[in-house]
Amino acid sequence: MADKRKIGVLGGGQLGRMLIEAANRLNIQVNVLDAAASSAKQISAHDGHIDGSFKDAADVKRLAKDCDIVTVEIEHVDTHMLEEVAGEVQVEPSWKTLRIIKDKFAQKEYLKEHGVPVADSIDLDGKGVEGLKEVGKQFAYPFMLKSKTEAYDGRGNFAVKCVDDVSKAKEVLGDRPLYAERWADFRLELAVMVVKTKDGVLTFPTVETVHEDSVCKLTYTPPRNVSKAIGEKAQELAKKAIGAFEGKGVFGVEMFLLKDDTLLVNEIAPRPHNSGHYTIEACPLSQYDAHLRAILDLPIPQSGLRLREPAIMLNILGGQTPDSHEKIAQAALEHPNASIHLYGKGEARPGRKMGHITVTAPTLAAAEREMQPLIDLVDSQKGKPLGPRDDTESQKPEPLVAVIMGSDSDLPVLRPGLALLEHLAIPFTVRITSAHRTPDWLRTFSKAAASTSVKVIIGAAGGAAHLPGMCASWTTLPVIGLPVKATHLDGVDSLYSMTQMPRGEPVATVGINNSVNAALLAVRILGAEDLGVRERLRVWMEGNETEVLGKDGKLAEVGWEAYLKAMGK
Amino acid sequence: MADKRKIGVLGGGQLGRMLIEAANRLNIQVNVLDAAASSAKQISAHDGHIDGSFKDAADVKRLAKDCDIVTVEIEHVDTHMLEEVAGEVQVEPSWKTLRIIKDKFAQKEYLKEHGVPVADSIDLDGKGVEGLKEVGKQFAYPFMLKSKTEAYDGRGNFAVKCVDDVSKAKEVLGDRPLYAERWADFRLELAVMVVKTKDGVLTFPTVETVHEDSVCKLTYTPPRNVSKAIGEKAQELAKKAIGAFEGKGVFGVEMFLLKDDTLLVNEIAPRPHNSGHYTIEACPLSQYDAHLRAILDLPIPQSGLRLREPAIMLNILGGQTPDSHEKIAQAALEHPNASIHLYGKGEARPGRKMGHITVTAPTLAAAEREMQPLIDLVDSQKGKPLGPRDDTESQKPEPLVAVIMGSDSDLPVLRPGLALLEHLAIPFTVRITSAHRTPDWLRTFSKAAASTSVKVIIGAAGGAAHLPGMCASWTTLPVIGLPVKATHLDGVDSLYSMTQMPRGEPVATVGINNSVNAALLAVRILGAEDLGVRERLRVWMEGNETEVLGKDGKLAEVGWEAYLKAMGK
Repeated sequence: MADKRKIGVLGGGQLGRMLIEAANRLNIQVNVLDAAASSAKQISAHDGHIDGSFKDAADVKRLAKDCDIVTVEIEHVDTHMLEEVAGEVQVEPSWKTLRIIKDKFAQKEYLKEHGVPVADSIDLDGKGVEGLKEVGKQFAYPFMLKSKTEAYDGRGNFAVKCVDDVSKAKEVLGDRPLYAERWADFRLELAVMVVKTKDGVLTFPTVETVHEDSVCKLTYTPPRNVSKAIGEKAQELAKKAIGAFEGKGVFGVEMFLLKDDTLLVNEIAPRPHNSGHYTIEACPLSQYDAHLRAILDLPIPQSGLRLREPAIMLNILGGQTPDSHEKIAQAALEHPNASIHLYGKGEARPGRKMGHITVTAPTLAAAEREMQPLIDLVDSQKGKPLGPRDDTESQKPEPLVAVIMGSDSDLPVLRPGLALLEHLAIPFTVRITSAHRTPDWLRTFSKAAASTSVKVIIGAAGGAAHLPGMCASWTTLPVIGLPVKATHLDGVDSLYSMTQMPRGEPVATVGINNSVNAALLAVRILGAEDLGVRERLRVWMEGNETEVLGKDGKLAEVGWEAYLKAMGK
Repeated sequence: MADKRKIGVLGGGQLGRMLIEAANRLNIQVNVLDAAASSAKQISAHDGHIDGSFKDAADVKRLAKDCDIVTVEIEHVDTHMLEEVAGEVQVEPSWKTLRIIKDKFAQKEYLKEHGVPVADSIDLDGKGVEGLKEVGKQFAYPFMLKSKTEAYDGRGNFAVKCVDDVSKAKEVLGDRPLYAERWADFRLELAVMVVKTKDGVLTFPTVETVHEDSVCKLTYTPPRNVSKAIGEKAQELAKKAIGAFEGKGVFGVEMFLLKDDTLLVNEIAPRPHNSGHYTIEACPLSQYDAHLRAILDLPIPQSGLRLREPAIMLNILGGQTPDSHEKIAQAALEHPNASIHLYGKGEARPGRKMGHITVTAPTLAAAEREMQPLIDLVDSQKGKPLGPRDDTESQKPEPLVAVIMGSDSDLPVLRPGLALLEHLAIPFTVRITSAHRTPDWLRTFSKAAASTSVKVIIGAAGGAAHLPGMCASWTTLPVIGLPVKATHLDGVDSLYSMTQMPRGEPVATVGINNSVNAALLAVRILGAEDLGVRERLRVWMEGNETEVLGKDGKLAEVGWEAYLKAMGK
């Protein structure tokens, strides 16, 4: 890092602050243009900052004079001045990109021209209340009325729900340049951080964003209840959208996932974005690292953008009282996997972004369990009643093992195995699914298993035991077969039905009626990755060894005849 | 976080800098006493810092005046002034602790008094060359001559190898307060970061430290070739040592692991320590987070100190040329899991700590593979010849599956399974270990397997097939049994030998001679955790489905007679 290039940033809020956090670690100087002591400047002590406004042309010029590259943490900047200085200093992303994106209507038109699906929109320039009513006829109600510029976190948006809302809408947004947008009846919202480098376009994972009162409240990575295929489609769409713009850096792409699983681009941010905060903990490189590297033409290995662990991000907003946000941070200190980021902002106005918390964990469900009390705290501060939740249910860990049996008559055979799973603290679920009597339910169960928390399946069955074999044919998870001794053939029928599967769909078969070994095999499989499980197994095996050694000692001591007598044999 | 308490830190080097990084995220103000623009001050812009020296009594007093809690990032401070200000301001850890620890001889005596094992030492106060020769007689050569104070990174230490070294040693260290220490013939060095809170003593994981030229070069977490039991013993010893001191905060405890597996405490640091840098990425809470929380009496959940992923830390030291260290950081940019920390220090004197790199990965072996090129670069800068390494070997991924067979006559049966593992890009190793002909080798292999990269074992054997069952008895890993059809009984003998294991040691048995299913079961087990593997399996299964559907289509098209003819039957 012989990098002596200086970066100038328009804006000194939390995004600039976290960008500087990344720059500090690489000893790269970042000069911030914003008010004195703004969030970003607090963690960067040098005399290259400019106290002023990123909307002021003269201030932008002053910043550019002493920098090698100018970038932004907000798009509501003076792009005309950026155009002027672009001759002397590199501006990333391009001022052209910023000019298009800062006008939401222009942004949508531009995306449409480049074949990127967006919601239909109508320009309302120069049109009054009658224009709005016209939109109501064309789009039907509800529709969105939006300010083309200076709109963020819901400010500048108005949902027009019926014709009577029209005058109220005009009243609220009347002095702004407006356009109307068709209502997107979405199932949920997704977002992807995209990195545009000199060599191409890379993406971070797809994120589910949850908004409340038009402000981002939570992000989930990976998204909940969204297939991998849709996640990838969102990444492709985000790539396509950003590929249409000039310049380097990270971009946030917010999308709607409609009820028919199609995607629309909602909005683009030409800078680091709230939906990318999770990358600080959850990915080897954060969105801030990526932005720096992209604008400096430094290497960005693609696998540096991968998800290390599922993550949930919760915004800490200013609340009802001046210390509402402090209480949330305070509560987060009790959570071992919660990373707390406070932005050093002054007064906590309601809704102001004061910080965020990221929880990462080996599974999204584990992260949800740890985050839930903090979400509850946020909701209770807002006076929201907690939803009807079954607290015992939400406390229960998700099953790692699914035990299925062809008939409840197999349950007594399973008992010692289930008891052992419980003893070794392995969460499991038990279901009845017969290959012959409920083939469709078995198919549904088996096909869904791999996308749940379950990592191993135990199938117990007797006779012409098809259960584990069919299950293995519909899943990629390891399936353990437990042959149950039924009425004939001493269980050898079940044993053969399980072991002698054709090439392609193995069943890990254990001894007849030996549910303990089926359970232990499941434990060993989980322990292949989870060292905690492996250790519990080791201790259990050691106990067995001690027990047998103890018996041997006693036998040696009392002799075989007394031993037999003590056994009552 | 309504925390308005101000923290004062004596010293503004990299430890102070990383402490401030943690404090910034909690919006806690840290005032640094050190030279202007020192490393720590660069990332903390406020007017509470003091330009001066942490050895200067008046400066310490000035710092203390405006703080609620005073702490240190270096122990070579004026403890008498700290004693004086301790009436007005909280000092953590206690000035008494700092006074004992900053004098290495006093530190050792104190530890000895508290029952903590340390190397034998002899005070040399007022003793000349004759005193040293006396030590040589008592301890034998080599022994260590050490300065009691101001000793760090090897400065102040001299290894006296023979009687002729004595005058040289006196010449080098003669003007310092000295003591001698018995040579510790250690196998390797371990370190543990300990957190002393108001409620008790917590520990981070045990680390292996590697020193070169008396300066820390690398840390490995967990340590290489050290059992879990020893790791825990080191944590216990570290706890005991720190339990003997007063005050709160993190402490670094460096230990020698002798060749007979006993532990000696070598040295204690009453502050964050180089051996704890890895915690920034590898643990939910870093040593810096822990230090802040400990001195502020904020919560520290024990599981926040756990290891998320194995980690290797490499120090970036000033080298032969002024930009040697920059080249290392530059090279690290290419490594997706490398987190780079540069300290913002000025001139790079040889050996000066300019930064560090941490690589975390799901296994230590994977972290080693990623770190090795950077270690090679460091070594090549020092003109060290690279050790005799087989480059193809080091490129080869570590095996995840171990395939063992009782006899090479089983190899042809294994062929399709091995080919499939290769096709699905699963690294594996194949060995011959007979339960009956090489029982000791099988035992050695099975006992060691769980501490290697291997996660699943496939055991193929025929006849009275004891191989997988014995292997399962000596390991906690999942063992797959592949019954091989030998000369008699059509393989049913092998099948029964494997499935009918006693309760306690399951063998996951697949069909007779069906090595493809043995391989696929191994793939499913790996895929339970590794979604990449699972996806490759899914695609392969889809291919199978397509193939059979294709055949069905052809059969429907040409009719069963023509189909049979085409099959040549």
